[in-house]
Amino acid sequence: MTERFSKLGVRLRPHTKTAKSVDVVRLALEGNFGGVTVSTLKEAEYFADHGITDITYAVSIIPDKLERVAALIRRGVKLLVICDQVAVAEEVSRRAVDLGIVLDVLIELDSGERRAGVLAESDVLIALGNALETLPGTRLQGVLTHAGQSYQGRSIAEIRQVAEYERMCASTAAERLRAAGLPCSVVSVGSTPTATHGQSFEGVTEVRCGVYMFGDVFQSEIASCGRDDIAVSVLATVIGHRPDMNSALIDAGALALSKDRSTGAPGLPEDIGFGLVMDVHGERRIDHVKVGHVYQEHGMLVSDGPFPFDQLPVGTRVRVLPNHACMTAAMYDAYHVVDGHGDQLVGTWPRINGW
Amino acid sequence: MTERFSKLGVRLRPHTKTAKSVDVVRLALEGNFGGVTVSTLKEAEYFADHGITDITYAVSIIPDKLERVAALIRRGVKLLVICDQVAVAEEVSRRAVDLGIVLDVLIELDSGERRAGVLAESDVLIALGNALETLPGTRLQGVLTHAGQSYQGRSIAEIRQVAEYERMCASTAAERLRAAGLPCSVVSVGSTPTATHGQSFEGVTEVRCGVYMFGDVFQSEIASCGRDDIAVSVLATVIGHRPDMNSALIDAGALALSKDRSTGAPGLPEDIGFGLVMDVHGERRIDHVKVGHVYQEHGMLVSDGPFPFDQLPVGTRVRVLPNHACMTAAMYDAYHVVDGHGDQLVGTWPRINGW
Repeated sequence: MTERFSKLGVRLRPHTKTAKSVDVVRLALEGNFGGVTVSTLKEAEYFADHGITDITYAVSIIPDKLERVAALIRRGVKLLVICDQVAVAEEVSRRAVDLGIVLDVLIELDSGERRAGVLAESDVLIALGNALETLPGTRLQGVLTHAGQSYQGRSIAEIRQVAEYERMCASTAAERLRAAGLPCSVVSVGSTPTATHGQSFEGVTEVRCGVYMFGDVFQSEIASCGRDDIAVSVLATVIGHRPDMNSALIDAGALALSKDRSTGAPGLPEDIGFGLVMDVHGERRIDHVKVGHVYQEHGMLVSDGPFPFDQLPVGTRVRVLPNHACMTAAMYDAYHVVDGHGDQLVGTWPRINGW
Repeated sequence: MTERFSKLGVRLRPHTKTAKSVDVVRLALEGNFGGVTVSTLKEAEYFADHGITDITYAVSIIPDKLERVAALIRRGVKLLVICDQVAVAEEVSRRAVDLGIVLDVLIELDSGERRAGVLAESDVLIALGNALETLPGTRLQGVLTHAGQSYQGRSIAEIRQVAEYERMCASTAAERLRAAGLPCSVVSVGSTPTATHGQSFEGVTEVRCGVYMFGDVFQSEIASCGRDDIAVSVLATVIGHRPDMNSALIDAGALALSKDRSTGAPGLPEDIGFGLVMDVHGERRIDHVKVGHVYQEHGMLVSDGPFPFDQLPVGTRVRVLPNHACMTAAMYDAYHVVDGHGDQLVGTWPRINGW
């Protein structure tokens, strides 16, 4: 991803929400300008503790969060926050003034995800831009959007369309703000699928993405990575056989894998349930085997053919490639880093959870 | 639950898998004999550290876990493990002998959940009983079963049937083992629904259940508790409005609530999505509002009527009652204990996660 955006001349601001680990994010920052995106203030505080001082907090700011924001700014962090409502901007400004800070704000745009944000063509964009630029506690810095509907793309062509729409919304909004005499130095877009497949980033100044650091089975199914690229897996052990049910059990269930399963996503090439089952090296898939059901601490392996009990005696260790790395990684306090064959522990990288 | 089983003359062995907190479990142990059930060895080690020394580890034992089991036994913990395969019992015995311990084992029964366990009427029950009793590294102590299909019950009558089947499987297996000259002092059953609604516990010596300590919306929908009994909630704040979508956003998404949603369970009275939205005191439901969608850090509030934006301005704090407390609680390192109106923090109770 670094190479891609370096060539394109667009800044990459990695999103730390998937990895939440400074050891991982340092790798992602190599060759980049050094700024990150975070999804929680706890992430912001943690990365600031580790010397990262250019941080965009990409979830709507509200007044109650400004004390922690102010503490970060006073520590020297260049923190950008996002906002999509004039009334909230006014409250935020009031609280910022009380705290003796001026907040750098990006306007959040809705580029089709239908979650948060204003529309690029809307009147409220300009009204909000004016408010942020004139209120005493805020400064307008630009626009930010996340075309999360890219996860619903089922072909590279579809994802390219989403990427182009994301780019167009962001650049249109930026042009409208500038035409209204407002500043807009930051034009920020991104999601792993659109960052991977977008063809033009004209008018965009930076791209944010996070799950590309690990990949997962879902991302491999929407062509953001190959299955061989998936960098996280859950080490589990076969704990039982059920020949009468053509299935087996492992000691990794809903808490070890999360409950993010693939069947919620129609149109994908294969329903991989809660994860694909690989050999202990993570190199070879156990043919046709996936985690079909999860209970709190049990995962049930199922197969669409005869279950390979001989290959998987009780006690066999396997690696489960997760459906959704963001959710699975969140169940752990640390990553156990292993060598290429998965045999030897070469490091333990802590991660930060919570808020 | 304590009162119920005290009256019935059956031992209650609370399951710690939901709460994973010694502060919570101490309340559950009041008036009981002092033993607990755990779902991970980490729970066993944590509760042993806190002076609880009668522990049943209710997930299939395998040889690789015996070093930690042996360490617990050497610390004086009366640890029971479970097994459902003769070949595994043989391996476990070998490893136990190597470690210089003798393991107390319960035979796991499948009383209709179709996960792990042997059938009460099967030949393998007696073969496994004989193996466990004669192998040098194991001792047969009894039987254990969990009728997890009680979660699919949609009326008290259905759950009573499941409870009776669970009881019958356990007591039948116990009688068959005893008739074969084998010991069977422990006859352990349980799940919160069957513990709540079972009418007879004849032949049962102990009941295990865990989620009853907290309750959740799902349990309230299958009549294990009332909505007013739910003891855990997620404190969240409204961070945005989308009048064009009749929805609003809170800062609690998939990581704060988990992805355990109710729509996987047909036949329930109401699809409550990822949680019900209550006022900040947790006392009154915000009419018709629930968490309809979750993103990593955003929850989208939806309503089947006009969305009550006036009641929920940006910045409003709400409490979300979770769909499934086991999964939601697992996203946190501690419980913040508040007084009856939810206004004042009166304690912070750590919990143990991981394996």
